[in-house]
Amino acid sequence: MEKRKKINLSESEMPRQWYNILADMPNKPLPPLHPGTRQPVGPDDLAPIFPMELIKQEVSTERYIDIPDEVLDLYRYFRPSPLFRAHNLEKLLGTKSKIYYKYEGGNYSGSHKANTAIAQAYYNKKEGVRRITTETGAGQWGSAMSFACNHFGLELLVFMVRVSYEQKPGRKLLMNSYNAKVVPSPSNMTGAGRKILAADPDSPGSLGIAISEALEIAVQDPYTKYSLGSVLNHVILHQTIIGQEALLQMEKAGDYPDVVIGCFGGGSNFSGIAFPFLREKFLNNRDIRLLTIEPASCPKLTRGRFMYDFGDTAGMTPLLPMYSLGHNFIPEKIHAGGLRYHGAGVLVSQLLRDGYVEARAKMQRECFEGGVLFARTEGILPAPESTYAIAGALDEARRADIEGVSKTILFNLSGHGHFDISAYEKYFEGNLPDHALTEAEIEASLQGLDLPAID
Amino acid sequence: MEKRKKINLSESEMPRQWYNILADMPNKPLPPLHPGTRQPVGPDDLAPIFPMELIKQEVSTERYIDIPDEVLDLYRYFRPSPLFRAHNLEKLLGTKSKIYYKYEGGNYSGSHKANTAIAQAYYNKKEGVRRITTETGAGQWGSAMSFACNHFGLELLVFMVRVSYEQKPGRKLLMNSYNAKVVPSPSNMTGAGRKILAADPDSPGSLGIAISEALEIAVQDPYTKYSLGSVLNHVILHQTIIGQEALLQMEKAGDYPDVVIGCFGGGSNFSGIAFPFLREKFLNNRDIRLLTIEPASCPKLTRGRFMYDFGDTAGMTPLLPMYSLGHNFIPEKIHAGGLRYHGAGVLVSQLLRDGYVEARAKMQRECFEGGVLFARTEGILPAPESTYAIAGALDEARRADIEGVSKTILFNLSGHGHFDISAYEKYFEGNLPDHALTEAEIEASLQGLDLPAID
Repeated sequence: MEKRKKINLSESEMPRQWYNILADMPNKPLPPLHPGTRQPVGPDDLAPIFPMELIKQEVSTERYIDIPDEVLDLYRYFRPSPLFRAHNLEKLLGTKSKIYYKYEGGNYSGSHKANTAIAQAYYNKKEGVRRITTETGAGQWGSAMSFACNHFGLELLVFMVRVSYEQKPGRKLLMNSYNAKVVPSPSNMTGAGRKILAADPDSPGSLGIAISEALEIAVQDPYTKYSLGSVLNHVILHQTIIGQEALLQMEKAGDYPDVVIGCFGGGSNFSGIAFPFLREKFLNNRDIRLLTIEPASCPKLTRGRFMYDFGDTAGMTPLLPMYSLGHNFIPEKIHAGGLRYHGAGVLVSQLLRDGYVEARAKMQRECFEGGVLFARTEGILPAPESTYAIAGALDEARRADIEGVSKTILFNLSGHGHFDISAYEKYFEGNLPDHALTEAEIEASLQGLDLPAID
Repeated sequence: MEKRKKINLSESEMPRQWYNILADMPNKPLPPLHPGTRQPVGPDDLAPIFPMELIKQEVSTERYIDIPDEVLDLYRYFRPSPLFRAHNLEKLLGTKSKIYYKYEGGNYSGSHKANTAIAQAYYNKKEGVRRITTETGAGQWGSAMSFACNHFGLELLVFMVRVSYEQKPGRKLLMNSYNAKVVPSPSNMTGAGRKILAADPDSPGSLGIAISEALEIAVQDPYTKYSLGSVLNHVILHQTIIGQEALLQMEKAGDYPDVVIGCFGGGSNFSGIAFPFLREKFLNNRDIRLLTIEPASCPKLTRGRFMYDFGDTAGMTPLLPMYSLGHNFIPEKIHAGGLRYHGAGVLVSQLLRDGYVEARAKMQRECFEGGVLFARTEGILPAPESTYAIAGALDEARRADIEGVSKTILFNLSGHGHFDISAYEKYFEGNLPDHALTEAEIEASLQGLDLPAID
């Protein structure tokens, strides 16, 4: 009998609504606080930064939110995305378990980031915005936003974390190809950037710094808004199309996962695939384990503190109740640039605290080892970020084999590694940097922060 | 009403046979000649180079050849490939014409080359071969072969044209990721390479030289065979799955092309999409124009001579009746590495001679201009090779608008440009090299060749 490799959905089967987990969470997250007054923020506080429709989505408790036609129209270029059964990988492992992966790298941006980029560009355009500023780490998010903004006739200015800017010139050029302006961060364009450069002219940058720079530019002009590629509720909302499709595809495959796995930076690819399965648990009592994999060099979920913290280094964002390593934390220059963020999104933080999500940290070399194994069997060269999800899936399969059971494992292959090939070169040469954060480093990063307490 | 962006086929609609145009060509090509005796070659002459099944396919006149299950099994990872309607590009052009493109870059190799790589690796494995040697220009073919060989447990040695090896380190690393050994050509590993290096230590290399090197290694060992990524009949046969799918997809779209366009190096991506439409003309009298676009720096179809010539520089291959610039021709270091080949496949050469195919040459910068326009509207960053097909499609649409008619245009987007981003950088900087071959250069390249005459 033919082995089925991929499970496709037709365009007519593509979900027309995003799923909002806020509707179903047993414990709602604490409110975000204003950075100045430290009182809960209202929509007006956010109006200089985001268009009103995204602010509404950020706080909405409606279970489903309609995807606008203009967004669906662009989704149709690359959605529904395929779900693969990893027969070749299973065979090499000799595992009894079944491994599925949802592949989000098949679109123009090479990652899941396109799902929210298109939506964000659309809402901004609709509300008369002319220019967007944003940050990017590995460059997946910046690439996604570049095409989306160009499509809707918006200018885009991207602050790209300097270490990634230098490691991945291809990503910068891709953004240029899509008509965006890209600046390495920290830069001299902003007060936040100049302050960091004064203290350390060779600063590798961080997502937190790049966010501060992008925000600083955005608030100076009423026709410029800011856009974020992860962490926030509305971003995660847009990513839920992944998991909703995956649910339908698993059904078509006649299967259901025991565990759903995603790599973890700010939470968007993980939440995107996982939350619709969590809805099934909340509403229909279907059992599921949700597993995040984060770098040992940036382990906010496994070793950070649950606290109110800023989303950026300069302290311009609202204070968010989340697991964090502290907003001054500057991660090591490891290659999974998309995972180099000090904090975790509010929704995942609350769900982790409440025991609905598991977290595990991994060293980078082990993840690349899994990535190469995956490329050689399944063909797709994974993004460095996605290798963490692969490593998590390998763990689960190997553990099940030791226990003598067969599990059904689903992970999100969030993107391809075509622009990250220099990291693979370092891996093959044995020169890939690796680092597990020490207790002393975590303590140092959390020390002396003046932040509101959580009971 | 929703505009339909992509027309998909289900796995069950995927063709199970390749289409062999040799069955239906009004004038069959002249036979290939042995390089030594200059008499028609028989299967035994080719046995040291290729497995017998591929030799049979090379000379078969059966209309359809079954695709083996093991090959279909891997095809299912990425086939059927999508057909897109370029609504956004059409809108920007303001054209009355309809533009469709078949996208072959969505698979692990990033191009159509996977279609034949998998088949070739399979047949070699089946006949007990242990190692394959091959050449690659831009690296698409080498990447395709690397994964396919690794999958079937074959070693692979790739001679990569030096100029591409230097321009595209990412492609070399991708091949390494898939477990292949990659050597820049000309190399010191072979007599053919040493001879070229003695005459010009800085030789940029050419596909012709790399083929000589790969052949030289292959014939020394009975368990090593050689594999070619374009030009030959069996390679083109494997690519016809593209056009067969496109036929079904155009039918689903309720449309039929007036013209089918492909870029042209050796002929495989063009023939792959075009030949099934030519079958419809031969068997069912359906009108169609077939258009190849080649670089003005390597214009064998538009300005080469129809002649018996070698496929490689050292004169080790059979003599093939084809349009050629002479086997000593070394093209300028332009970036569309996959189009830098001195000769055209026998099938396309004969069909061009008989008036069934049109050819047009283009300058590189115009093609990149089209490529960037395409990326900004349709999202996919095209391979430099594929920009030639885009430029051809833009030509056709603009000409139709001047004539006040609406045409249906279909082109093959043969691959993505993720590993070719340095060429885009040069284009944006205004430093992209460009060159139209002069008559004097063509004369010089064709001079003094001792080759059998064609009446």
